[in-house]
Amino acid sequence: MKGIRGFLIDLDGVLYVGDTAIEGARDAIGFLRKRKYRYRFVSNTTRKCRKTIVERLSDMGFVISEEEIITPLIAASVYLKNTGKKHCYLLVTGDAEQDFDQTCICTTREKADCVIIGDAGDRISYNSLNTAFRHLMNGAELIALEKDRYWMAPDGLSLSAGPFVTALEFATGKKATIIGKPSEAFFDRALDEIGLRPGQVAMIGDDIVTDVAGAHRAGMKSVLVKTGKYRKDSANNSVIKPTYSIDSLAHLIKFLEDEKG
Amino acid sequence: MKGIRGFLIDLDGVLYVGDTAIEGARDAIGFLRKRKYRYRFVSNTTRKCRKTIVERLSDMGFVISEEEIITPLIAASVYLKNTGKKHCYLLVTGDAEQDFDQTCICTTREKADCVIIGDAGDRISYNSLNTAFRHLMNGAELIALEKDRYWMAPDGLSLSAGPFVTALEFATGKKATIIGKPSEAFFDRALDEIGLRPGQVAMIGDDIVTDVAGAHRAGMKSVLVKTGKYRKDSANNSVIKPTYSIDSLAHLIKFLEDEKG
Repeated sequence: MKGIRGFLIDLDGVLYVGDTAIEGARDAIGFLRKRKYRYRFVSNTTRKCRKTIVERLSDMGFVISEEEIITPLIAASVYLKNTGKKHCYLLVTGDAEQDFDQTCICTTREKADCVIIGDAGDRISYNSLNTAFRHLMNGAELIALEKDRYWMAPDGLSLSAGPFVTALEFATGKKATIIGKPSEAFFDRALDEIGLRPGQVAMIGDDIVTDVAGAHRAGMKSVLVKTGKYRKDSANNSVIKPTYSIDSLAHLIKFLEDEKG
Repeated sequence: MKGIRGFLIDLDGVLYVGDTAIEGARDAIGFLRKRKYRYRFVSNTTRKCRKTIVERLSDMGFVISEEEIITPLIAASVYLKNTGKKHCYLLVTGDAEQDFDQTCICTTREKADCVIIGDAGDRISYNSLNTAFRHLMNGAELIALEKDRYWMAPDGLSLSAGPFVTALEFATGKKATIIGKPSEAFFDRALDEIGLRPGQVAMIGDDIVTDVAGAHRAGMKSVLVKTGKYRKDSANNSVIKPTYSIDSLAHLIKFLEDEKG
């Protein structure tokens, strides 16, 4: 990892699974801080607002500030400001709504200038998707907070936003603007914040497509962890190969120390 | 129409629109019977079982028997028998479930060997789609009763099964087996039932893609009716051209009589 001065670090599956911190993950973060690596946590989580994420991390023993976290919700609310969108139909969880300027959220009956869809869980219904569909057919832009296929919930693999984004794309013939990982704009924003060039940064994640391929496309190195949604077969069968591969975030310490030695 | 000895006839938009029979449609069916043309009604409707369809047609004055109707639900239940599938997770309306062998319907918790998805309306939810997704990831086959994008409901354009099929395809990386129109197997089954070769049959429908192009691919002639979802602009702009075009099913009588004369 010569020349690597910073890391973008996925949260779910890398720092924790469900409500349980991955063993040694806290120490690994402490190690990065001590060694003055620069970093941001870049999560594709769109179920929770940043405040809730920080509280949850805190419950698991991680001391991380809101400013250290970038999610698609945060990136989207910036996107809305930059593009002047003022009437959004939000297909996200109630908690996720907190990251948006509340005056921009339109009701079902108002004409929307954009539809924003995240991992909305139980807010996904025939009715809510059909409302989104009708707004899109009336001219609204389709904004996807992420386009992941699924994630590992405590009770098993669960659909993420991607399938529903694809459903709306198929129904309307429109292509979604993707805000979260692996969009380059999202990575660029994180790199800007830590003031490093892509070649100086490695993305640490458990997803071969979003994290590994996304990082490579943005010019970064990648570190695949074998925790969270990592599956040996999928990783081996994929044409995408990470720059580095470690058993868990805990092993980052040894990896970085061995290199120095 | 020389050499045409039979017809496959779409229901919605050809025999009726909403709850109203198309003028002269009943007489046209009577004419076909009298002249001993062979025919089947081939509908892509997946919201209603065949019994309900017959009752609805009866309310509109059409005397049509269950055996004369083929829907994707019927074709799917035959497909299940032929392929020996015994544990199906059904994502269809409650009424549509009636067309299946009830012993083949599995509960949420049982392991399914196939997932069957139709235009399920309010049965579509995060939970039901996620259950389907998990069955698919556990090896179940994805069977789509149709893959239409949307349909015209009384209160506006509404999502059909296609977007949800696409969502599950995206999530699982599996390709759905499509049972309804315009799949060749569907048309083949109808042709088998009336014992005619494709060249002896014309498909009568209001949809340029599903009915007209589908018929041509299966080797049949096509008759486009200018009722139902027919729109002059879409038909004129399409590269797909029907073999024949008539104002409504009522005009079939004159068309066939003129030819004889």
